[in-house]
Parts: sequence; structure tokens; C-alpha cells
Amino acid sequence: MSRPWPARVRITEVGPRDGLQNQPQAIPTAAKAAFVRGLVAAGLGDVEVSAFVRPDRVPQLADAAELFARLGPAPAGVTYGALVPNAKGLERALAAGVGKVAVFTAATETFNQRNVGAGTREAIQRFGPVAQGTKAAGLALRGYVSVALGCPYEGPVAPERVLGVVEDLLALGCDEVSVGDTIGVGTPGSLARLLAVLLARVPAPALVLHLHDTRGMAVANVLTGLEHGIAAYDASAGGLGGCPFAPGASGNLATEDLVYLLDGLGVAHGVDLPRLRAATEPLRPFVGTLPGRVRQAPPWPPAATGGA
Amino acid sequence: MSRPWPARVRITEVGPRDGLQNQPQAIPTAAKAAFVRGLVAAGLGDVEVSAFVRPDRVPQLADAAELFARLGPAPAGVTYGALVPNAKGLERALAAGVGKVAVFTAATETFNQRNVGAGTREAIQRFGPVAQGTKAAGLALRGYVSVALGCPYEGPVAPERVLGVVEDLLALGCDEVSVGDTIGVGTPGSLARLLAVLLARVPAPALVLHLHDTRGMAVANVLTGLEHGIAAYDASAGGLGGCPFAPGASGNLATEDLVYLLDGLGVAHGVDLPRLRAATEPLRPFVGTLPGRVRQAPPWPPAATGGA
Repeated sequence: MSRPWPARVRITEVGPRDGLQNQPQAIPTAAKAAFVRGLVAAGLGDVEVSAFVRPDRVPQLADAAELFARLGPAPAGVTYGALVPNAKGLERALAAGVGKVAVFTAATETFNQRNVGAGTREAIQRFGPVAQGTKAAGLALRGYVSVALGCPYEGPVAPERVLGVVEDLLALGCDEVSVGDTIGVGTPGSLARLLAVLLARVPAPALVLHLHDTRGMAVANVLTGLEHGIAAYDASAGGLGGCPFAPGASGNLATEDLVYLLDGLGVAHGVDLPRLRAATEPLRPFVGTLPGRVRQAPPWPPAATGGA
Repeated sequence: MSRPWPARVRITEVGPRDGLQNQPQAIPTAAKAAFVRGLVAAGLGDVEVSAFVRPDRVPQLADAAELFARLGPAPAGVTYGALVPNAKGLERALAAGVGKVAVFTAATETFNQRNVGAGTREAIQRFGPVAQGTKAAGLALRGYVSVALGCPYEGPVAPERVLGVVEDLLALGCDEVSVGDTIGVGTPGSLARLLAVLLARVPAPALVLHLHDTRGMAVANVLTGLEHGIAAYDASAGGLGGCPFAPGASGNLATEDLVYLLDGLGVAHGVDLPRLRAATEPLRPFVGTLPGRVRQAPPWPPAATGGA
């Protein structure tokens, strides 16, 4: 608590993409559009809406173009982003009117080999045309580095390897790099070691933290990020994307839990909690009860006390 | 992360008392005894075993004397504690061979009035005979201050009120005071403000933090406690005492989640995670799946990687 932290943070809402991509039940495009509009109404100005990936690989997001069409142009001050794996995906994304493009890679060779059949460096080089096309279109480019604090195949990951990937993504032209604890194994100890290595070479504003709460560490890791001056965080409304009680749960940090922490610290974020709760209502018939902790708890402070 | 934290912490395991007191299903004394023995085998040297309260008020703990009898004398280096509300309870506790006595009060007038029909100061004064008897028996005395970061009746609680209760408990003769976020509303912000007020008047070794994870803040709050030099924490095996998905859940900080954080920070604690998992097995037929986050997640690092 001794270091000052950012006065304001930017939250990138990844629920519509990262949250919905693993849902077992098909969700109508209209419900997704209502969800995204609700997120914007709750104050979330940076929303990753979908991914322009092969529909046979990720059928849950096969309606990306239709979803962008339904949404129409993003309101002023709002960015609708999308994950894009290759030039063909970028073509579709640009045609759909995407406002921000994200490319996705991992910190370990094994994860990349299994995911895209290429090593880390080659995987990033393949993004060259996407990066060039994104820049030519005047759009922002985000890079993801997944499994940055631990890989399901390789175990713990050396911070220097993450730094190498972050630098490659910045060299590619990324405006920001989202560093992900994809399997939720990081602690304030391992995260502090990683951030010390990254921040020695990369300016804090280029970094975003993407934390998963699989082992209950996400909020403590955000606190650690704040103490290191990181001012941008990914989160998923209601913790959409995985219930900790379900096998294979992804355990995305819930946007509400992040907001509750930030409110407690007096850090500005611009998100309205009641509206955020309302935003997920259109999904309710398809995703059931969401696992976020604040979402599950009674409101605080209780209205009757009039406390602050 | 910038302040050094304690090299070692003491964990007080409160699962058998705080965890089991709200369980809807009756649990055989033999299962409780096996649980306590398993906790000790896992390295937990300070276990709050039960409470000598009125059996009609807390039927779940009505077997306190029988449980102590089954357990027999605590092994060397291990303390079996019990909550005691009054002189009659102390008499039973001493006869049972208790090793440490705890008295319980709250930071707000309304909570105490509703709980014991007396104001805070009077409630503490009533503990005089318990304190004197405990000291005369040569035993350690713990005081609890509940709802220290928020009260369900009064809302947020001023740190100065908590300080007053802590000082009254220390004046009563308490060797340690466990400061509880009973309804799990605290954040690193409100906790830091409370600790700043407490530590200006009370030495850190006299303080214990008792955190609930109702809103996902418990681990971040432990981190804040560590950064303030607090070296003693209460926790409950598996998060016993409340599932966040159940109404009225208490959401005790899971001992495993605490241990995972401490391991990540390199803070010693003496607890063996696999044995702790085994410790709750005797309870499984009665309590079902436990809500602790680490408990629900796959082991890390995966054995195959040989990582550390």
C-alpha cells in the first residue's frame, strides 16, 4: 500500500469475446448485442466484442460479422475490438467495422506449437500482414501474451521469455500488450517478479494485465499491478467465461470484483455497478448464474444504513 | 510490494469452530476429531476446536466437551483453542482441557445489542471473570472484534471505534486480538486505513486478521496486512463455513488460498497442502464440496513439468 497507484484505470471488457467463446450453449446474436450495449451503458468504453476466427474452430463466435452489423457504429468514445488471427480475419473484421484489432500469442513454445503449429517467434511474424493492415486502416492494435505466469504444458515461465514476446509484439506495432495469467496460477510474488523485468524495458502505459481468478489471486494481483503503476486491466462481466466450480473453468477476473477493489482504493474507472449487473441480463437464459464474487454477494453498503 | 513483509506467519485454523458452527447437517464428533487431527498433521499448530456455548443456541458445537475428550491432550507445540462466552463456559472449557480461550465481541453497538443484549463496553466488561479465570489457569486469551470493516446493521465502521474495542480487549488481558471482516466487505483501502489507526497504538504482534472472502477481497486484504507487518491470520480449511454460492454464506478465507499466496510470496507458514486437503476428507459426507478456490483448482505446478 505504500506506493502511489494510478488515479484512474482503463478497463477492457472481454466478456463478449473471452467470456462467451467457451460457453457450451449457443447464444443468439441479438442477446450478445444487447449485452454489449448494456456494457457500454454501464460505462465500459473498450469492449472486445468478438473474434474473426474460423467458425468451425470457435462456433460460439461465428456470428462476429452479424454482431458488428447489429451493433452498428460504436458510440462516441467507445471502441469495439475484435480478435483477429490472420489477414483473412482482418479483411472480415475491417468489413464489419471493427475499431481495434487484437492478435493472440503465448509466452511458451509448447503452447504456441499446440495452438497454432508454430514457435513463438514465427507465430508473431505471421501477424505481420494483420499489423500492417490494421495500421493502414488507422486502427489500434493490441497484442495478447497468454500463459505469462504459468503454462499448462511447461509450468512456470521465466519473466525474460515474457519480455521477449512483449518486445516482439511492440516491434510488430502493437499499441498495447495484454499480459495474461491465462490459467490463474500467478501470485503477487510471481507477478511482481515479472513486472520488475518488464518495466525495466517497457513503459507501463504499454502494458495491460489480464488476470484469471482460478486460485483466488486475481484481485491481489491487480493490487500488485497497481502498485507497479499498471493502469489498464482486462475483466469479464460477472466473471463470464468460467465458473470456478466447473471443470475447465477459465475463471476470468469479474469486472464487478475489479470495480469493487478500485472503489475501495479510490481509483476511478467510470463503471456503474448496477448497470453492469443489468448488462448481463440478456445472457441469463443461456449462461445461468455468473461466478463473480461481488455479483454473488449482497450489495454493500446496505441501502438502509446510508453509508458510503 | 515495496514494504518488506514478515518472513513467517502464524495461521490459526478456525474451520472446526467458525467453519462448522453454521453447517446445516449434524456432524459426528468422531468426524470432527479426525478433522482436527488431520489439521494438526498438516502442520496447523493453532486450531480453534469448538465453542463452549449454550447447546440450544449453537447445536452444531454442543459436543465441545466430547470432542476435546476424544482428542485428548494436544500434541507438543499444538494449541487447541475454544470460544468461551462466560464463566460457566470457561468452567466447562477448563474441565475439557482447553489450551487457549477466545472471547467474541463486535465493533458496533447494534451488532452487540442484537447478539448479546449489551453495548460494546458492557459486553467486554462481562468477560472479566473469563479473562481472570483464563489467566489464573495459565492459558492464552484471544479476543475477537467482529464486523471491524463493516456491520450489517450500521454499515461502514470508523477505525477509531475498532481501536477502542481492541484496546479494551487488550486491557482485559487478551494476548492477541483477531480483527474480523465478518461480512467480507473490506478492501485493501479500508483495511489500510484501519491498520494505520490500529498500528499507531497497538503493536503488530498483538493483532490477527480474520478475513472473509465474500466479495473476493480476502487474499488482497492479506497482502495488505502483510505489507503492514501483520504476521498472524485466521483461515478455514477449504473455506469451510460458507459457500459463496449459498445464501447467507460466511465466506471464510480458505486456508489453502492463504497458503498459496504465502508460498507465492516466499513467506513461511509450515502447512502442507496435500495433507490439508486430506484433513477435510472425514467431513466430506456432511459438508459436500468445499468452496476454497485453490481447493477447486488443479494442482500447480503440474507434476509433469517438474517446475517449482
